[in-house]
Amino acid sequence: MNRRVCVVITARPSYSRIRSALQAIKDRGDIDLQIIVAGSALLDRYGQVIDQIEQDGFNIDARVYMVLEGENPTSMAKTTGIGMLELSTTFGNLSPDLVVTIADRHETLATATAAAFMNIPLAHVQGGEVSGSIDEKVRHAVTKLADLHLTATRLARERVIRMGEDPEVVHACGCPSIDLAAEILRNPALDFDPIDRYGGVGGVVDPTAEYIVVMQHPVTTEYPTARAHVEETLHAVVEAGIPAYWFWPNVDAGSDGTSRGIRAFRESHDPRVIRFFKNMSPTDFLRVLVNGRAIVGNSSVAIREASFLGTPAVNIGSRQEGRERGQNVLDVGYDREEIRSGIEKQAGRGRLDSDDLYGDGMAGPRIAELLATSPLSVEKKLSF
Amino acid sequence: MNRRVCVVITARPSYSRIRSALQAIKDRGDIDLQIIVAGSALLDRYGQVIDQIEQDGFNIDARVYMVLEGENPTSMAKTTGIGMLELSTTFGNLSPDLVVTIADRHETLATATAAAFMNIPLAHVQGGEVSGSIDEKVRHAVTKLADLHLTATRLARERVIRMGEDPEVVHACGCPSIDLAAEILRNPALDFDPIDRYGGVGGVVDPTAEYIVVMQHPVTTEYPTARAHVEETLHAVVEAGIPAYWFWPNVDAGSDGTSRGIRAFRESHDPRVIRFFKNMSPTDFLRVLVNGRAIVGNSSVAIREASFLGTPAVNIGSRQEGRERGQNVLDVGYDREEIRSGIEKQAGRGRLDSDDLYGDGMAGPRIAELLATSPLSVEKKLSF
Amino acid sequence: MNRRVCVVITARPSYSRIRSALQAIKDRGDIDLQIIVAGSALLDRYGQVIDQIEQDGFNIDARVYMVLEGENPTSMAKTTGIGMLELSTTFGNLSPDLVVTIADRHETLATATAAAFMNIPLAHVQGGEVSGSIDEKVRHAVTKLADLHLTATRLARERVIRMGEDPEVVHACGCPSIDLAAEILRNPALDFDPIDRYGGVGGVVDPTAEYIVVMQHPVTTEYPTARAHVEETLHAVVEAGIPAYWFWPNVDAGSDGTSRGIRAFRESHDPRVIRFFKNMSPTDFLRVLVNGRAIVGNSSVAIREASFLGTPAVNIGSRQEGRERGQNVLDVGYDREEIRSGIEKQAGRGRLDSDDLYGDGMAGPRIAELLATSPLSVEKKLSF
Amino acid sequence: MNRRVCVVITARPSYSRIRSALQAIKDRGDIDLQIIVAGSALLDRYGQVIDQIEQDGFNIDARVYMVLEGENPTSMAKTTGIGMLELSTTFGNLSPDLVVTIADRHETLATATAAAFMNIPLAHVQGGEVSGSIDEKVRHAVTKLADLHLTATRLARERVIRMGEDPEVVHACGCPSIDLAAEILRNPALDFDPIDRYGGVGGVVDPTAEYIVVMQHPVTTEYPTARAHVEETLHAVVEAGIPAYWFWPNVDAGSDGTSRGIRAFRESHDPRVIRFFKNMSPTDFLRVLVNGRAIVGNSSVAIREASFLGTPAVNIGSRQEGRERGQNVLDVGYDREEIRSGIEKQAGRGRLDSDDLYGDGMAGPRIAELLATSPLSVEKKLSF
Repeated sequence: MNRRVCVVITARPSYSRIRSALQAIKDRGDIDLQIIVAGSALLDRYGQVIDQIEQDGFNIDARVYMVLEGENPTSMAKTTGIGMLELSTTFGNLSPDLVVTIADRHETLATATAAAFMNIPLAHVQGGEVSGSIDEKVRHAVTKLADLHLTATRLARERVIRMGEDPEVVHACGCPSIDLAAEILRNPALDFDPIDRYGGVGGVVDPTAEYIVVMQHPVTTEYPTARAHVEETLHAVVEAGIPAYWFWPNVDAGSDGTSRGIRAFRESHDPRVIRFFKNMSPTDFLRVLVNGRAIVGNSSVAIREASFLGTPAVNIGSRQEGRERGQNVLDVGYDREEIRSGIEKQAGRGRLDSDDLYGDGMAGPRIAELLATSPLSVEKKLSF
Repeated sequence: MNRRVCVVITARPSYSRIRSALQAIKDRGDIDLQIIVAGSALLDRYGQVIDQIEQDGFNIDARVYMVLEGENPTSMAKTTGIGMLELSTTFGNLSPDLVVTIADRHETLATATAAAFMNIPLAHVQGGEVSGSIDEKVRHAVTKLADLHLTATRLARERVIRMGEDPEVVHACGCPSIDLAAEILRNPALDFDPIDRYGGVGGVVDPTAEYIVVMQHPVTTEYPTARAHVEETLHAVVEAGIPAYWFWPNVDAGSDGTSRGIRAFRESHDPRVIRFFKNMSPTDFLRVLVNGRAIVGNSSVAIREASFLGTPAVNIGSRQEGRERGQNVLDVGYDREEIRSGIEKQAGRGRLDSDDLYGDGMAGPRIAELLATSPLSVEKKLSF
Repeated sequence: MNRRVCVVITARPSYSRIRSALQAIKDRGDIDLQIIVAGSALLDRYGQVIDQIEQDGFNIDARVYMVLEGENPTSMAKTTGIGMLELSTTFGNLSPDLVVTIADRHETLATATAAAFMNIPLAHVQGGEVSGSIDEKVRHAVTKLADLHLTATRLARERVIRMGEDPEVVHACGCPSIDLAAEILRNPALDFDPIDRYGGVGGVVDPTAEYIVVMQHPVTTEYPTARAHVEETLHAVVEAGIPAYWFWPNVDAGSDGTSRGIRAFRESHDPRVIRFFKNMSPTDFLRVLVNGRAIVGNSSVAIREASFLGTPAVNIGSRQEGRERGQNVLDVGYDREEIRSGIEKQAGRGRLDSDDLYGDGMAGPRIAELLATSPLSVEKKLSF
Repeated sequence: MNRRVCVVITARPSYSRIRSALQAIKDRGDIDLQIIVAGSALLDRYGQVIDQIEQDGFNIDARVYMVLEGENPTSMAKTTGIGMLELSTTFGNLSPDLVVTIADRHETLATATAAAFMNIPLAHVQGGEVSGSIDEKVRHAVTKLADLHLTATRLARERVIRMGEDPEVVHACGCPSIDLAAEILRNPALDFDPIDRYGGVGGVVDPTAEYIVVMQHPVTTEYPTARAHVEETLHAVVEAGIPAYWFWPNVDAGSDGTSRGIRAFRESHDPRVIRFFKNMSPTDFLRVLVNGRAIVGNSSVAIREASFLGTPAVNIGSRQEGRERGQNVLDVGYDREEIRSGIEKQAGRGRLDSDDLYGDGMAGPRIAELLATSPLSVEKKLSF
């Protein structure tokens, strides 16, 4: 009987960090793939990643609604609690042999805890990284609940082992998001107009001229300042004057602050140099990114995909603190002047050489192989 | 304004591992102590630890019902989810400056996650130990969510630091349970008859003659075999022939198996050499323990308190695997013959020298001092 | 395609009030029967009704754990809330065309609300009755959420219609529990010894001599007095001196009070005239009942099955207040003297004529027919 | 000691239906008023009714987050389940003597069930009305859980009594929303520009010229068609050509359909005759309403406040089916042509005479008196 591998996707970025592995699983044919879509990945107002998953040809085995409205730290805790109630039922129904959780959003702790308490082996994709905020705690707590570790980088693998995990179950695979970037890089031309294809709101930004890409998420431990932070970026982008494609943040404690900041700015300043989008297919997004002069904000895309694609990045504030980064990244504070000058500097560099820090483009098949063949166990013990 | 320190107690053993620290906090007068009693600590059929807490003069700020009936792995996951829903509300009401969670039961993950997600600094008592079963995962996951670590042993401190925690926030304090043991050891006479004071059911066991103490908990990753395991111990105790005081297990996945095994054995064998108790005050329990010939089962009491008290122990099976142990412990398998011969061997050794592996009797004041004065932060980052 | 009818069973008595209808559904073959076992029906310590269901040849489609420990009014509310979370997932998985909820326990409100909010037509078995306590509120609230009403008596049908339900969707069917009683009455000999078959604890009660049957449940609005109430009954039974088979109460707010009262009385009085059982198959129970001199307590069995079987009943206190009753019932207060004299009086009457107030023995096929063929809709409106 | 009366407000319209009673309670001084704000009343994207409550000088005792994202029937059921978990905790903290629930949204069933199961007397404001959709079931189920009934109309009182409630506990009080309307009617001049005060988005609508008001909610049993329905109204309003102030719908299953419909229409048609608002203070809203030519949509405001104010109404579709209505209402189907002609007809009638069907302007003091002085009990029984 095929091994039943259950992948839980709780947010848009999680999908891009597992997609090529799902494809590789499908291509192998020796795994019964189960996909649970949960959390903000189900919510209409954050862009229906679920539609993307189905368009990519994957079957969704369960939808788990778990996001408690409120978008404050309490509702984040309650969302995770609801997730544990719901996911334990769903795991009971699907009886997986192995559960896969991705990265470090707060809901991944619900996935990890439910699996661990139900004695189902747990694989964790993208442990061992270092960042600011609550993600840091969640990521390493998930590592301690997981039985199989599939890291993006060699350094991440080292860190997971140093935390006491058995080296035999820790594998550096690269990040699946790079697999897609590798595909794009083989043929990087921007062959569509983002506004034609995705609509969006705001000014008309011409993809054939110079442009930048912006993605800014609220930082959960800096919850009350989310709005002030995004305003600095908005001002900086307007002042830099390079037209921008701006992507809306994920649902999270504080994202209402970010969203409100953006909306209020739009009402009062009507920034004609910015076009706002809620979502874009990963392929289209990367194509936009590789052709941009720079990516600005605090998304990990700037650290991972952009380093492989060679797009210069202006990374703002604490959110990516501690993550390994390549030559494409310039770090700045929450200050419109610093951000503006960063944009100008980075936008002038042109496309850089590709960096394989986060993968060589083969992460998906490597992860699929390990999910198919690794010995499974729920027993582990600190190795020191 | 005094610092508000909120201690969450979810089970009987947790209380004995924090009690002297609570007393020391009260004695200092510079901390506003908040106590939440939750989980199985509230349930009548497992002995009302809550009555004990009130009798000890502590005020209970909130009672949190969270145990979902069923006693299987799924209900354990759901119990933790419910705990997150309920505890986040309670933390919202009490607005603590610092939350304290104790040891490694599954509910501690609810406490830790709720505090972490609400950006409340978290202190973890008794991290860094190594054991079998799900406790192992829970304990280290809580470490990765915690901001202040108060370990029982020096080796445990080392392990927490090796997992990447900042040495400045990791302190070896000893285990508060040893503080009580130290008190008892200063005057160890057994001055009461357990049956007179606590009733219990089963045979009449004379405390002035030779007796042993038994405590056996279900092991969650060995859930279906809980009943078979306890039957081995029951047969061994009857065959060894030394009268026994037997203490009922905690609520847990599988405890119904253990409980059923005990009940069925009682019906069929009517073991006159065993007296069964649901609960006892910690003081009385330790007094019974120090005067016993040996402690048998898989309780951590055999490893900690018994090593300080000098009571020989027969430790059965995998539950305490990996925990540091002193000279008082003999390990055996789930086999009635091994257990019986272990009982006979250990019961013949007499009281041993006190071992300070798990503390010197001053853990309570040391913990109170750290809770009162440590700098508080929710920001941390892997130190390698 | 067959209609999918999903029956939710949350407690032991619910099963006896639907069993013959389930059998009739199975016999018809034109309904896809789905059975969800939930709530206390899943709990080991209240007798595994689930085993009975499977032994009767029914397939269980889902098990829903929802009972939050605590057994107080708050945990009863939370249990219902958890039930709504869990049952809505389960209904989503099973996609029934019609949900069936039985009688008036608090969990039935979870079933009813989840079905109503999910726009699934709801059938309610045994609405329109009148009783004391919270059951009264639950029963009529469920009526207002239900789309199809299958009452036990003609008077109950009248009441449901008077509450504003469309007479076309309200049908007096009789109570399925009477179907089993009718079967027993065709051959009423007691052909087994209850102690041989079920064990139980307490005195040895001879089934071939005179005996009574006792069943006393806590009354939820009289929660703190549950223990005092059961003690009156215990004393009365001992004083009456007729040996008794006593059946343990359901899990409910207060049942710990009742249970504790029984346990404490057993310890202190060791009543040799009483044998305590946790559970019995419905068939065996009715056979015991029809051969008893009387049934004592506050169970609805005394009102329904006993009136059909002709067994005299001593009904204590407020729990059955308002329910239609036949000639077999004598009502008394929570007073040991009144209860004792009631027992003596009723036990002297001998077996009475069968009364068809609660059904003629054909309720099951009648209910199955309506579930199979009634038009289904979720739209309704007060008819006045 | 003052009676503790706890009012649970779960949505914007609930507040307008209790506000004058809260004021009257405050003015009396013999009630300890407790206010819980819960559900969509807490959510930013539906207009912060909580700010309004605080601006009105009321103290909020607890905030209860309970809305599970998803906006489909399953998440509505789960939201109610979460509400029961959270509200039972909150009732436990606040220990009210009486809980007040308002009207018929799905969350009111959470309030009612939690109070009933915790043996807290429950008052229900605005029972006995008749409408379409799930509200109908919820409203009457709450009636059966409630102990005190404060209806808006005499006919509603009659209906509650006919459903079997004791006439002594059923009082026709009028609707508090009419109290505010009465105040406005004493001085109806529109003394502000809605756009100046509330912003909003869309066209510039001049309040000194002719305008209409639109409010359209999704109908939960017609969930998939919400978007199509709102599009008919959008087209009708544009075609009618009278400028409109349009108010955004509540959060509910389907509101995303309604919201999406509005958003898509705005993008494609850019309707300059419509100004969209998320929220407005009740006073300002009524002032806008009384000066409008007509109100269009399916809000109950058109039936209640507008009949008292004399504003003609075009009521679309099934949502208000069964509600008592005055001479101001014209009913039309979901058809742009019917709606357009209805708008034209009603907008030509001018302001009508005030109708006291839903109250005489003294409902608040009447309700406050009953909450202060009615005997309290949780025991009730069907009176037939």
